[in-house]
Amino acid sequence: MDLKAFFDEARELDRTDPLRRFRQQLAHPEENLIYLDGNSLGRLPVKTIARMYELVREDWGRQLIRGWNDGWYDLPLRLGNKIARLIGAGEGSVLVADSTSVNLFKLASAALRYQQGRRKIISDVLNFPTDLYILQGLLQSGGNGHTLHLAGSSDGITPDIKELEHCIDQETALVVLSLVSFKSAYFYEMQAINDMAHQNGALVLWDLSHAAGAVPVHLDRTGTDLAVGCTYKYLNGGPGSPAFLYVRRELQDVLMNPIQGWFGEYDPFAFELNYLPATGISRFAVGSPPILSMAAIEPGLDLLLEAGIIALREKSLHQSAFLIRLADELLAPLGVSVASPRDGARRGSHVSLTHPEAWRIIQALLQPLDDQPVIIPDFRAPDNIRIGITPLYTTFEELFVVIRRIRDILTTGEHTRHSNDRSGVT
Amino acid sequence: MDLKAFFDEARELDRTDPLRRFRQQLAHPEENLIYLDGNSLGRLPVKTIARMYELVREDWGRQLIRGWNDGWYDLPLRLGNKIARLIGAGEGSVLVADSTSVNLFKLASAALRYQQGRRKIISDVLNFPTDLYILQGLLQSGGNGHTLHLAGSSDGITPDIKELEHCIDQETALVVLSLVSFKSAYFYEMQAINDMAHQNGALVLWDLSHAAGAVPVHLDRTGTDLAVGCTYKYLNGGPGSPAFLYVRRELQDVLMNPIQGWFGEYDPFAFELNYLPATGISRFAVGSPPILSMAAIEPGLDLLLEAGIIALREKSLHQSAFLIRLADELLAPLGVSVASPRDGARRGSHVSLTHPEAWRIIQALLQPLDDQPVIIPDFRAPDNIRIGITPLYTTFEELFVVIRRIRDILTTGEHTRHSNDRSGVT
Repeated sequence: MDLKAFFDEARELDRTDPLRRFRQQLAHPEENLIYLDGNSLGRLPVKTIARMYELVREDWGRQLIRGWNDGWYDLPLRLGNKIARLIGAGEGSVLVADSTSVNLFKLASAALRYQQGRRKIISDVLNFPTDLYILQGLLQSGGNGHTLHLAGSSDGITPDIKELEHCIDQETALVVLSLVSFKSAYFYEMQAINDMAHQNGALVLWDLSHAAGAVPVHLDRTGTDLAVGCTYKYLNGGPGSPAFLYVRRELQDVLMNPIQGWFGEYDPFAFELNYLPATGISRFAVGSPPILSMAAIEPGLDLLLEAGIIALREKSLHQSAFLIRLADELLAPLGVSVASPRDGARRGSHVSLTHPEAWRIIQALLQPLDDQPVIIPDFRAPDNIRIGITPLYTTFEELFVVIRRIRDILTTGEHTRHSNDRSGVT
Repeated sequence: MDLKAFFDEARELDRTDPLRRFRQQLAHPEENLIYLDGNSLGRLPVKTIARMYELVREDWGRQLIRGWNDGWYDLPLRLGNKIARLIGAGEGSVLVADSTSVNLFKLASAALRYQQGRRKIISDVLNFPTDLYILQGLLQSGGNGHTLHLAGSSDGITPDIKELEHCIDQETALVVLSLVSFKSAYFYEMQAINDMAHQNGALVLWDLSHAAGAVPVHLDRTGTDLAVGCTYKYLNGGPGSPAFLYVRRELQDVLMNPIQGWFGEYDPFAFELNYLPATGISRFAVGSPPILSMAAIEPGLDLLLEAGIIALREKSLHQSAFLIRLADELLAPLGVSVASPRDGARRGSHVSLTHPEAWRIIQALLQPLDDQPVIIPDFRAPDNIRIGITPLYTTFEELFVVIRRIRDILTTGEHTRHSNDRSGVT
């Protein structure tokens, strides 16, 4: 199949895309920019601009301290309830708070304390390293002979589920996994893992950072115990926007948040000297939430809820399959491999391509020659080009263009003009 | 002295106020509002409006993920260095991160681990209850036979320093106090307490929430070990804006942050599976910081640095003395007491007045009859009217007006029209 045919196909798919009207709801100030990093930082919803202006000028500037009673105080739970609808959770089971890392610390610590006598935590090598760092820190600072076991992966793309199954036993307190792996986009079978853990009396804590807003998640229906996730990727919440946490209803009043701040207190404005935990999900709040960053989450959430996770998933799967087909046809001959699951059911909403020159290819995409578009994907060490598909605004044509560009770069050697120096990279 | 004389004096003091030009740098959208709660949520700096608009529209909307390399990644340390100048700390010893509560948890946990073999934590009953909650949670979740001792206060205004001295002994790991007490505004002698602790081998952790930007603080010079504080009060950082933490240089590479997130990692984008802590203050970062809320801190900081803490303190002391003089003269006969230190050297930048009807007096101030100004102070249970003096924008005339209003309310019984129902209060 030639380029022209792929291009025509992409155009036709965009023309008939039932979600196409959403693209204009996200700011696109640069015509000549293709953004394939919405899985790291989602684009700015147009409505967020006015919302933030009003929040700063009116709510803070005019309402001042009264803003807390006029909506700020309820914001973590109100937004949590909106996120809940995206991830199959009931009202009052999701709270926006802190960062993903802090939330993971709180819930993992609470789970270990609850699971007295069990000393094993299970994760795997596909998990986001920060999640492992948090667990390591928890074991060092508050552990009580606990150990962390990591199941492996033979190819860096798919987890070794058999090994996971073998690791999870009657001594296991907690299983911590990322529902969609940050590098390969492997999408775990939540129900199967939950069952595996529950049969052994273990709790499961899922990191939904690459899953929320990208794939269908059914926290309640699958009997999930605990979950955390970020809001700055597919939820378009803005740089470093606060994270969320989920606690199964039955666990909310028996788990203890180790970080006992006043926003998790039963009656914070009584200023009693001894902590009495709030009931329900609010117990897992800590300090005063950063309202500007938190409020910025809402317009993106509203867009996702309006589009619906089923339609988003359908388009995302269609797009990732299209991208993989193009990569196979056009880039495989040039040494590029697909490093994401080929089974759509097991694939999240990004696709990883690997090439030994991944770093320099990305430099060429970011700083193109002549009038080529700037293309922004992600680099993930050592050789990974991570292409984020955000069905709310990614077009099929953009996916076609990035594959064509990589082909041209590798064919002409354009990437060799760039340095291999990776200092200062984030 | 009659009202007219006080009024004239206030007017004259405002006329000759060397900081008067700063008032217009803070938004005052409501003419008829007197805001005396800058010690809870500072007013909006005018420059913050444009800064936030640009941050959202350009930095997020246009720069997208590239914003991290274009300033966001360095923001916690860059703003930390500005705060450092306000609190007598050197470059690289202050970081903006998380909430005050989370920072307190991190530093207290690190200190306890460092002080192996010492089992006592000392605080007192004047400390902000959340600080005590955090310590209680830490001891329950990660404690190792540690205990928390609270020194008392005979009057709820001043701490029992003798008892503190008695409590701090060779078994003491850590002393945790608020440098300016949230209710009475008592201002501790930092050097004396530090010396008391250090003579016994204990570390000290100060909460500067009511001190930073309000009183001179000399962290380095006094040999302070650890400190935390918020930025939404006197620093005018906005609702729930991220907090800061300080770690004495010699302790930075020996203390371990228990919450090991990727922003505290040595090389986060290497994605190694085992945590290697960053060197320096960055080790005490955790997850991705909320950039919108964090960036909003800067314009207020710049104003404070321009005004200078010496000039701010001078005006603040002058204002609180003026307020106390008015309260003594005009309100004492009506049953109102001053519940803050009368010694200026021991008083922060707010003044607490107590009256059995404090709650209803405040309702009358907030919802005045006729064309009276709306006046916003703070209520602190059970009987406390907390008047925040923010020398950057508070005028002497405003202080005069609030005292006159309280006098009028108590004289006419206006407060008795209001309900005593306190539900939903924040």
